Amino acid sequence: MTLTLVNGESAQSIPADDRGLNYGDGVFRTLVIRAGRAALWRLHLAKLISDCTALGITAPAEAELLADIRHIASRMPDCALRITVTRGSGGRGYAKPQTVTPRRIVSASTLPDYPARFATNGIQVRYCKQQLAKQPSLAGIKHLNRLENVLARSEWTDPDIAEGLLCDSDDNVIEGTRCNLFLVERDGLVTPDLSQCGVAGVTRDAVITLAAQQGMACRIESVNRSRLSAASEVILVNSIVGVWPVARLEDLEWRNFPVATRVRQWLHAYGNATD
Amino acid sequence: MTLTLVNGESAQSIPADDRGLNYGDGVFRTLVIRAGRAALWRLHLAKLISDCTALGITAPAEAELLADIRHIASRMPDCALRITVTRGSGGRGYAKPQTVTPRRIVSASTLPDYPARFATNGIQVRYCKQQLAKQPSLAGIKHLNRLENVLARSEWTDPDIAEGLLCDSDDNVIEGTRCNLFLVERDGLVTPDLSQCGVAGVTRDAVITLAAQQGMACRIESVNRSRLSAASEVILVNSIVGVWPVARLEDLEWRNFPVATRVRQWLHAYGNATD
Repeated sequence: MTLTLVNGESAQSIPADDRGLNYGDGVFRTLVIRAGRAALWRLHLAKLISDCTALGITAPAEAELLADIRHIASRMPDCALRITVTRGSGGRGYAKPQTVTPRRIVSASTLPDYPARFATNGIQVRYCKQQLAKQPSLAGIKHLNRLENVLARSEWTDPDIAEGLLCDSDDNVIEGTRCNLFLVERDGLVTPDLSQCGVAGVTRDAVITLAAQQGMACRIESVNRSRLSAASEVILVNSIVGVWPVARLEDLEWRNFPVATRVRQWLHAYGNATD
Repeated sequence: MTLTLVNGESAQSIPADDRGLNYGDGVFRTLVIRAGRAALWRLHLAKLISDCTALGITAPAEAELLADIRHIASRMPDCALRITVTRGSGGRGYAKPQTVTPRRIVSASTLPDYPARFATNGIQVRYCKQQLAKQPSLAGIKHLNRLENVLARSEWTDPDIAEGLLCDSDDNVIEGTRCNLFLVERDGLVTPDLSQCGVAGVTRDAVITLAAQQGMACRIESVNRSRLSAASEVILVNSIVGVWPVARLEDLEWRNFPVATRVRQWLHAYGNATD
């Protein structure tokens, strides 16, 4: 089941001259609505505004987004919500039209039904062959140019593999196809530097903040494969899956996930306190 | 004026769950229809098929595209035509749906009215600050992930500047925001290597082939800014503008364009012979 609002109105379609379609000229967010409440809403809103600003797109007003969310939550109180903001309709050519009205597309889907063991026992992941290009002007932004992710995700069909890890052209590990990544090392958490590529998700931001509040070191650094192999835990996070520890990666295995469990508890308490 | 066909039917919109919108998961072509005939059609069709194949998208049948073109040419015999092929509609997530039907969007716009002096006297261009990321899996393909071009084109508004040049992260000159590039050197033509980034347009392909037929050397090589500065002509080409020599780039000036004129004549004769 899906339910879509385009600029606040129920709609199943968008104009064919939308620059989101023609050039990937826009940004998006994916978040969870549970019991009618949008999880980590303040962080998602801040990130949406920041990503729009980075591309010179006027972000929608919070009131409009909240009205969309209320409308959807009244029909689907538990759902995965995608908010897309495109630059809007425009004629031929890369130049932005002189006057342009951004378009907001809010679409709800049934929440995916992941096995509970993914969170408790960990998941199996693989390295993708597809690499992430280094593009500092777009790094961190959740924009609509996502062919690298599509190509990476097309590398496997085995349903036992829950996520693929992506490296940059220097073989630094950056992220999963749809998750951010943390390592647990002796002296705390490490998450890959996203200044050259990757998407800086809000769950990653929340974990960085919560680690600081909890007195656990969390550093943003380059991570290569051997550093990842040596980590005592490897943790994947995003708004939909929450916190998944990695149990298997090629010939490597991890069995105990005490830090992943703590991080999940932090996020749970944080979500309850702030939503 | 615009006129749009979606899967062969007159339409102004596409479904909001199209993966072209959600991920830039698709490719496109831009070509000219003059007096009802699609210029360089064989080359455009071959490139469309090749780009679809590179992304694992089933290309539309030629007969469907020709029917679209006939329909449009009967109403707009002279127009700029954009053919977009997306992977089609799909649910949430980067994974391709198990069954997916590509969507074809064919849209005609009024031909842009460029001053004739751009072709005869040359154009003014600039270097863009925006760099092209190196991504060999997507290089050459005219896909829908075009934010680099959008950001580059947003760097200037001066209408006297007809095009911006883009370099990669090693400062190799690759292309214009919407044109391919040739240099004229003592021993022939040089066009930048597009194995790491850039779009390999069909006009570039045609010029490479025609140079060989005409006995003019044409090499595909790395081009840095000093090599470009030393060229006796710098020529920009695409399906819409045709052949534009560069007259001014920052403090550099060029005044004679004998090779650009020859290349234009080759393309003209080739188009008449092959369309």
